[in-house]
Amino acid sequence: MIYMDNAAATRLDERVWEAMRPYFLDSYAVATSEFGHSMGLDAREALGNARTELAQRLGIMEKELVFTSGDTESSNMALKGVVRAQENKGKHIVVSAIEDFPVLNSAKALERRGYKVTYLPVDAEGVLDLEALRSALTKETVLVSVQQANQEIGTLQDLKAIGDIAHDKDVLFHTDATHAFARVPMDYEKLPVDLVTISPHTIHGPKGVGGLVVKEGTPISKWMDGGFQESNLRAGLENIPGIVGFAKASELVTEEENERIRKIRDVLIDRLTKEVEDTTLNGHRTRRVPQNANITYHYVEGESITLHLDMREIEVSTGSACFSRSLEASHVIMGIGGDHERAHGSIRYSLGRFNRIEEAQEVVEAMKDIVKRLRDISPLKRGGK
Amino acid sequence: MIYMDNAAATRLDERVWEAMRPYFLDSYAVATSEFGHSMGLDAREALGNARTELAQRLGIMEKELVFTSGDTESSNMALKGVVRAQENKGKHIVVSAIEDFPVLNSAKALERRGYKVTYLPVDAEGVLDLEALRSALTKETVLVSVQQANQEIGTLQDLKAIGDIAHDKDVLFHTDATHAFARVPMDYEKLPVDLVTISPHTIHGPKGVGGLVVKEGTPISKWMDGGFQESNLRAGLENIPGIVGFAKASELVTEEENERIRKIRDVLIDRLTKEVEDTTLNGHRTRRVPQNANITYHYVEGESITLHLDMREIEVSTGSACFSRSLEASHVIMGIGGDHERAHGSIRYSLGRFNRIEEAQEVVEAMKDIVKRLRDISPLKRGGK
Repeated sequence: MIYMDNAAATRLDERVWEAMRPYFLDSYAVATSEFGHSMGLDAREALGNARTELAQRLGIMEKELVFTSGDTESSNMALKGVVRAQENKGKHIVVSAIEDFPVLNSAKALERRGYKVTYLPVDAEGVLDLEALRSALTKETVLVSVQQANQEIGTLQDLKAIGDIAHDKDVLFHTDATHAFARVPMDYEKLPVDLVTISPHTIHGPKGVGGLVVKEGTPISKWMDGGFQESNLRAGLENIPGIVGFAKASELVTEEENERIRKIRDVLIDRLTKEVEDTTLNGHRTRRVPQNANITYHYVEGESITLHLDMREIEVSTGSACFSRSLEASHVIMGIGGDHERAHGSIRYSLGRFNRIEEAQEVVEAMKDIVKRLRDISPLKRGGK
Repeated sequence: MIYMDNAAATRLDERVWEAMRPYFLDSYAVATSEFGHSMGLDAREALGNARTELAQRLGIMEKELVFTSGDTESSNMALKGVVRAQENKGKHIVVSAIEDFPVLNSAKALERRGYKVTYLPVDAEGVLDLEALRSALTKETVLVSVQQANQEIGTLQDLKAIGDIAHDKDVLFHTDATHAFARVPMDYEKLPVDLVTISPHTIHGPKGVGGLVVKEGTPISKWMDGGFQESNLRAGLENIPGIVGFAKASELVTEEENERIRKIRDVLIDRLTKEVEDTTLNGHRTRRVPQNANITYHYVEGESITLHLDMREIEVSTGSACFSRSLEASHVIMGIGGDHERAHGSIRYSLGRFNRIEEAQEVVEAMKDIVKRLRDISPLKRGGK
């Protein structure tokens, strides 16, 4: 089997697993349990060490990292917590039109509650329109939320430029870095970002755990109420095994690995766009995360391609994990100016640690053959639009 | 070591661990991934099976169970989701004064947002005042939230009576069943409850996963926005290993085990209240969960007792996991009419699958000796109040 769908990146690394193990069966106490209790101390130490390691990797202070149950919770907490803390300032937020669902649907939820939301356009390659951002900011604006990397087309945004524009108007800046995490440099201390959503499930880490970077001094209301964990910013018993696995997964990603993955991606992009006719690369050619390729094969249904690839034991995606059960066209492809035909003919290749360059060559050969066969029998004739 | 603190119940059962294992390393796909993908199918099947098993145990329909990241999230979702869905009806909720922090602090958060919250009193044994409940309900009331079992003193509430009073006035009823889950009968379909918070971390299951029962037709706004998982009630990638462990942990709790644990508890309560002078049992003698004993030793500091017990390798608690780092008096002990002295002299014994009756006998002997020694040197003289 060749996995180039979500499974390519979500496969747990056995070393992450080994790191998590002791915290399931041996140190099962909660980190907040009584003093003098060795298991409680073990758990607290593990929590502290994971926080230290991740903070170093992220270039932030330890107290600026809040552990959550995943990127979905982190983005809910960021958007909803920040707007609540600034209710007296204004009720306007700005997001990009191609955000992933946690940000996009949190924004829509706020809109239903009377907030004004501006959905900023992106260009044909998915890059945010900075002029539109500048014009969108008003005295009522309390938050800009623009992702670091897109979940489907991999385009990287210019966080420095976006943050500078926001901060120039005293507006806070949140970025959903789920699909950039560890795969691109993460100098969040230097970057003008106030809140960053991160998650290890895209880098062979566990599901059910995530993080939100909250820079010191950022106004934010507690979203998950209850106990006083995480500097009283997020209630709930700490998921120690998950947090330990989060730190380990992050540690295992190296520059060398990212470079190796980038080369596999480049084989896919270069060969497929050259050797298959009537294709469009979705996203920017170079300003994209190393682990993503996304190509539209015109006059063919993506679903048919995935079915034929599956018969050859090759797994790819036609949409994000969140809407693959529906037939809605991807809002990302639509956002970069695509139409329904382009959205439905798009194939996303996700890469991870375990992919090899030979797999890319095999996938290219299979794609060439399948697309040719499908086009031969396709009712979507060329030029038939 | 004898564990009668939180660790007694939070220790993961090795059989739960074995059930979870395959879903970490082998079936790592997300449950919502593409059709035709065997790992995605495995994950979806595991999710479905866990839901079926838990629903049967809970006496509810499968679609009435929503998986979350834990009891804290479940109670936040219940309180905040239900009040939002009924904004047009009214802005009054009713909770008991001795709720655990997820409910109590969600209620306080709502209070800060303009909701009126009534904190209902309980009697000396922790039982809710039903007359006070009846009087508290108005046309503005949208939710009653009263726990099934108390987190510190183990008192069980009469869910049938409470639910009938609420429903008689067309008010929804949520119960936080975290500390009752699987240890008492759970006929939630027969009981007049609309929402139930559950979590496996108290029955040797994993942390980082929980559930909210949402009975069919219950008005609730989505709280965690993002993808369309969990019948579009809770966004976020499903934590398949955690959910599988949740179902397994529930399956392993038997009536026989609960009876065995109840006997250990009874040894603690009967012997300690009889053989140590000046003690008060906190909570109801019989209407309490089998796994909890809580006794105040007057004229002694609970912290001193735990320290001395720890030196004898016996672990107990002086307060809930959430406030053990602070010196605040337990709101539960205060709620049953206790004062600061009684709160600080209280010791909670939590029991689990791995406790044995001989441990209870050993703990009783140690307690007798330690309390005597501490009282001999205590500045808190008897009758000095």
